[in-house]
Amino acid sequence: MESHLSFTQSQWDIVLASFVMAAFALLGGFVYLLSTKREISARFRSSGIAGSIVCLVAFLAYLLLIISWIVGFRFDPGTAMYVPSGHALQFRNAYRYVDWSVTVPLLTVEIVVVSTLVGRAARRMRGLLIVLAWLMIVTGFLGADTFSSDTGRLVWGLISTVVFIPLYVLLLRTAFRSAKALGGPAGSALRSAGLLLSLTWGVYPLAYCVPFFFADSSGWAVGRQLAFTLADIAAKVGFGIFIHTVAKHRTGSEVA
Amino acid sequence: MESHLSFTQSQWDIVLASFVMAAFALLGGFVYLLSTKREISARFRSSGIAGSIVCLVAFLAYLLLIISWIVGFRFDPGTAMYVPSGHALQFRNAYRYVDWSVTVPLLTVEIVVVSTLVGRAARRMRGLLIVLAWLMIVTGFLGADTFSSDTGRLVWGLISTVVFIPLYVLLLRTAFRSAKALGGPAGSALRSAGLLLSLTWGVYPLAYCVPFFFADSSGWAVGRQLAFTLADIAAKVGFGIFIHTVAKHRTGSEVA
Amino acid sequence: MESHLSFTQSQWDIVLASFVMAAFALLGGFVYLLSTKREISARFRSSGIAGSIVCLVAFLAYLLLIISWIVGFRFDPGTAMYVPSGHALQFRNAYRYVDWSVTVPLLTVEIVVVSTLVGRAARRMRGLLIVLAWLMIVTGFLGADTFSSDTGRLVWGLISTVVFIPLYVLLLRTAFRSAKALGGPAGSALRSAGLLLSLTWGVYPLAYCVPFFFADSSGWAVGRQLAFTLADIAAKVGFGIFIHTVAKHRTGSEVA
Amino acid sequence: MESHLSFTQSQWDIVLASFVMAAFALLGGFVYLLSTKREISARFRSSGIAGSIVCLVAFLAYLLLIISWIVGFRFDPGTAMYVPSGHALQFRNAYRYVDWSVTVPLLTVEIVVVSTLVGRAARRMRGLLIVLAWLMIVTGFLGADTFSSDTGRLVWGLISTVVFIPLYVLLLRTAFRSAKALGGPAGSALRSAGLLLSLTWGVYPLAYCVPFFFADSSGWAVGRQLAFTLADIAAKVGFGIFIHTVAKHRTGSEVA
Amino acid sequence: MESHLSFTQSQWDIVLASFVMAAFALLGGFVYLLSTKREISARFRSSGIAGSIVCLVAFLAYLLLIISWIVGFRFDPGTAMYVPSGHALQFRNAYRYVDWSVTVPLLTVEIVVVSTLVGRAARRMRGLLIVLAWLMIVTGFLGADTFSSDTGRLVWGLISTVVFIPLYVLLLRTAFRSAKALGGPAGSALRSAGLLLSLTWGVYPLAYCVPFFFADSSGWAVGRQLAFTLADIAAKVGFGIFIHTVAKHRTGSEVA
Ligand SMILES: CC1=C(/C=C/C(C)=C/C=C/C(C)=C/C=O)C(C)(C)CCC1
Ligand SMILES: CC1=C(/C=C/C(C)=C/C=C/C(C)=C/C=O)C(C)(C)CCC1
Ligand SMILES: CC1=C(/C=C/C(C)=C/C=C/C(C)=C/C=O)C(C)(C)CCC1
Ligand SMILES: CC1=C(/C=C/C(C)=C/C=C/C(C)=C/C=O)C(C)(C)CCC1
Ligand SMILES: CC1=C(/C=C/C(C)=C/C=C/C(C)=C/C=O)C(C)(C)CCC1
Ligand code: NA
Ligand code: NA
Ligand code: NA
Ligand code: NA
Ligand code: NA
Ligand code: NA
Ligand code: NA
Ligand code: NA
Ligand code: NA
Ligand code: NA
Repeated sequence: MESHLSFTQSQWDIVLASFVMAAFALLGGFVYLLSTKREISARFRSSGIAGSIVCLVAFLAYLLLIISWIVGFRFDPGTAMYVPSGHALQFRNAYRYVDWSVTVPLLTVEIVVVSTLVGRAARRMRGLLIVLAWLMIVTGFLGADTFSSDTGRLVWGLISTVVFIPLYVLLLRTAFRSAKALGGPAGSALRSAGLLLSLTWGVYPLAYCVPFFFADSSGWAVGRQLAFTLADIAAKVGFGIFIHTVAKHRTGSEVA
Repeated sequence: MESHLSFTQSQWDIVLASFVMAAFALLGGFVYLLSTKREISARFRSSGIAGSIVCLVAFLAYLLLIISWIVGFRFDPGTAMYVPSGHALQFRNAYRYVDWSVTVPLLTVEIVVVSTLVGRAARRMRGLLIVLAWLMIVTGFLGADTFSSDTGRLVWGLISTVVFIPLYVLLLRTAFRSAKALGGPAGSALRSAGLLLSLTWGVYPLAYCVPFFFADSSGWAVGRQLAFTLADIAAKVGFGIFIHTVAKHRTGSEVA
Repeated sequence: MESHLSFTQSQWDIVLASFVMAAFALLGGFVYLLSTKREISARFRSSGIAGSIVCLVAFLAYLLLIISWIVGFRFDPGTAMYVPSGHALQFRNAYRYVDWSVTVPLLTVEIVVVSTLVGRAARRMRGLLIVLAWLMIVTGFLGADTFSSDTGRLVWGLISTVVFIPLYVLLLRTAFRSAKALGGPAGSALRSAGLLLSLTWGVYPLAYCVPFFFADSSGWAVGRQLAFTLADIAAKVGFGIFIHTVAKHRTGSEVA
Repeated sequence: MESHLSFTQSQWDIVLASFVMAAFALLGGFVYLLSTKREISARFRSSGIAGSIVCLVAFLAYLLLIISWIVGFRFDPGTAMYVPSGHALQFRNAYRYVDWSVTVPLLTVEIVVVSTLVGRAARRMRGLLIVLAWLMIVTGFLGADTFSSDTGRLVWGLISTVVFIPLYVLLLRTAFRSAKALGGPAGSALRSAGLLLSLTWGVYPLAYCVPFFFADSSGWAVGRQLAFTLADIAAKVGFGIFIHTVAKHRTGSEVA
Repeated sequence: MESHLSFTQSQWDIVLASFVMAAFALLGGFVYLLSTKREISARFRSSGIAGSIVCLVAFLAYLLLIISWIVGFRFDPGTAMYVPSGHALQFRNAYRYVDWSVTVPLLTVEIVVVSTLVGRAARRMRGLLIVLAWLMIVTGFLGADTFSSDTGRLVWGLISTVVFIPLYVLLLRTAFRSAKALGGPAGSALRSAGLLLSLTWGVYPLAYCVPFFFADSSGWAVGRQLAFTLADIAAKVGFGIFIHTVAKHRTGSEVA
């Protein structure tokens, strides 16, 4: 829908600025998680690697959003508005789902690695969460893009929600139970990670519902983009730093 | 053929999304295999290096597919379709073969390195598989692109199949025999790698045959692109992770 | 405003040259801080990582400034002037704020890490400074871009200043008190860092005020861009080198 | 001359495919030689570094060939041919010489480092080979591009050949004598490197002569490009792997 | 001036080829100095880091020269000449000064680090040379670009020369005195570095003077670009390798 709307200069600017800010924050997260990899023992290291891949992939995804935001509109001096340019690479909110199809499964891996689950239980939980996360995103993508009539959006959105609920429950249960079992600074960082997750993941289905309740306007579109962008930064960079903190403390107590 | 067809917006979108998803997954695989290189002892390390090169090369190949998919079509507001743009860099399925000409030989190296073959036997098997893999792809390329009349496609496809059969047999035999000899977690990861290989490699000749049996339509073209893309992710990233697991377990038991 | 002005060839050249020089200096700072990371012990290392992220992000921000400076103007042979091109990606001074929204919080982290603050006090100071820095930049951005009528610029600028004052005081107090407590070469390098900070950070609000006092002219615009650019180099690369020196000396005395 | 010819779709495709394949193979060689650097002791390591630089530089050179191949032609729907586009960056075979002016001297360094020459003799041989290699390429470039009338091409080609002969003799003598002195697996790998060199380096002067004997046709141009491309892959990646093998075996016997 | 001239195809080609060759050589220098960093002890390592930054920055500067050389001209089929294209990003010799404003100060650092100067004397010499080098380049830039009337060029050129003389004297004195004090292979490598410096740095002011004595012609412009390019390669890559050799020998004798 963004690709059929026109925006004022301020609106277009603020969306571009938020995308660039996200790209910078994600690149920073990537460099941070990569250069601190050695502070973590082998047992927990793949949480940091997963976190750094999440940031790198999302950085590239924001580059794609930035490019399509720029080539997808042209400035019309008559109305002083940014209007759709007709370029093949129109801006699509759906590009976000492509990022998520790779990064959301990896975010679930981060939790499992630093949790107290081990061995077969950890492997099974990891496999289950990866599959659920991928299905949730792919079905959501079909509702948001390919079958995006009102009914299509509704039906695929409901299917996606049906997958979302157990995923959300399992993730939070894993995080909070492990946090309790770990205690100390590792436990409290894991609790923060769980809390951040519980707050940010809710933003996505809410933003998905906007078109059902509000007319398609540039104001809502800007709001939706800002919401997604801030949630993405928090759910990737912020979350990744909390998980890294858990891993560092668990590394420390291993040695002790 | 893709370059002569027109696509609906949804069709064009879903193909682009699948390409971008593959690029992200391959980049993730590259970072993963590169940053875990040190977990593997010198003897098995070149399997991880080969795997990371496979992912990096294929990541670039998908960038080329993405760029040619974007510049190769333009959006026609009249029919609301994506139609061929006439740009020199049209989208070609044949670009995939260029990727494969480098990566498929490397995939065969991955198997040999973690197999139980050693010394001269390993070197000869490696040389043989590399040559067969390269010939299979190059002859397939000639049938799919350069001599792509119906007869050309048939004849070169058959030659390619004649190379494919011994290659497939040798690869699976090496994988499953070594898996049995290794036993334990290394053996079971190698068995999974062999299984994944046996399932995914069959997709490519099947997709090659589509034009013989079905009229050239945009629906079939989308299906073919999705099939290739998912098979590529599995045969490179998934396979690479299984092989890495074998190498890690073999490293572990060396020490013990 | 830059995007509504015309520039002579010399003016356009000198601004481009200053942007490219900044990009080069920042890239140099990035490579330097990254390759000397190992000289610093784990306790102070995140100052170097923060510094390298600051330089990398700002390097990319200058790439964006450079690109928008080039595509945002076209050379008009008639008047021999660079005039606005009407391209969607016009040059905007506001892009600088996007860089700052990520890098200024990180600059405050650098100070805290090498200061004498430890434990909970360090964590609280760090959190406070990050939040203040981010709010200062975001409110400044709203005044400089989104609500950039004269009143908007004034009101948001004042709000930003209200955040700036305690931030500036806390930063300098932390730097100079720690410098005194540390003494020796570490203390004197930290004092230099504080001094550099106190001089450069003042440039930004001054440049923000220019449009209130002077008519909007290409001469003032050039001056403003040069001021921002030189301040950015000093406040990021110069500052980062001083902080690195503190960290190296503190690492040395730890061992002793 | 390529820039004055028209190509069928198949011809244009196959040349593009070969360039992309070379780029992928060279990138793979770069990653391989860089990540195995540590397997080689300090004494022989600069052979691996030289090899990785060769691959990286040639990878970039192929990017330039690819870009100029794409922008240098446009598809003409009337004749279904790729015709020269008139873009400033026309495709030029001469770009290859730029790559060679840096990489061929480095290839000679690789041989000297792993040879049995040491001390002053090694330094003098290295200096001599670097100078000869650079002169051979630069004079060849003048014949192929700047003074490419028939006489120019002949005279500069002869001068280049006069440099080529002693270079070729010295290189092969160094390789084969050292191979004999070393014996064992190191010697046999060095013999293979020398053999590969002796076979591939001859391709270049032969391809240079084509225009003297055959009319300037698109068929010959395609053949010439394929010959150069395959020779480049063999003379850089294949050769680099053989040299790496020599260095690894020499490292092993040092320790023993 | 280059941006007002027209060039024959051979002239345009040879300049492009020289730029690309420089970019390749500089990239090679970067990889070499970065991957041999560990061979040097902490005390001398920053010479290698400075050298690698010099090569990386200059590599990017040549990318800018290459891009502006390509987009700054278009091929005119009528006259078979490359004529100015009127693109905003015209080719400017002045872009070289931007590179130098960062790299020439770093080149002086390389000398000081491997010299026999230590402690406060080293720090003061380093600071002085950095400031002189930067001033020399910036004043030269003003003469070559911003105030490039004949008088402007003369006056700023003279000011630049006034800075150049003490800089040149100090640099050479530092190099040759230290070379003598060090003796052995370290001393002789430092002598070579000083000699190379004394020869190459003179090229720059000479090339600056060309427009005073010779009419502005494409032949002179080509000569000037070749002179700058070859001098840059020698003064950065060649010099960096000599300095690296000094550092390696000094590292060796430290241990002994
Ligand atoms: C339930 C639901 C959805 C959930 C999306 C979620 C939970 C996305 C999380 C994304 C994250 C965490 C990104 C991190 O960077 C969709 C797909 C919008 C479709 C509608 C129903
Ligand atoms: C038999 C056959 C083919 C086989 C292709 C295969 C087996 C490709 C495997 C690709 C892989 C594994 C890619 C991994 O990323 C072709 C060439 C289509 C041509 C027709 C006959
Ligand atoms: C007080 C004030 C401002 C302060 C900006 C500052 C202090 C920016 C610092 C930037 C740095 C340090 C960048 C480093 O590279 C604004 C936002 C201009 C808005 C007007 C009021
Ligand atoms: C004798 C001769 C030539 C020789 C070229 C050679 C020997 C090139 C080798 C290139 C290599 C090894 C590249 C590796 O990647 C030229 C210049 C064509 C000009 C004509 C005469
Ligand atoms: C004296 C003088 C000059 C000197 C320039 C020099 C000495 C440049 C050195 C550049 C180097 C060493 C680059 C390395 O890559 C200028 C500025 C041309 C202006 C005219 C007077
Ligand atoms: Na766990
Ligand atoms: Na949506
Ligand atoms: Na094996
Ligand atoms: Na096909
Ligand atoms: Na502290
Ligand atoms: Na401003
Ligand atoms: Na040797
Ligand atoms: Na030629
Ligand atoms: Na010194
Ligand atoms: Na000049």
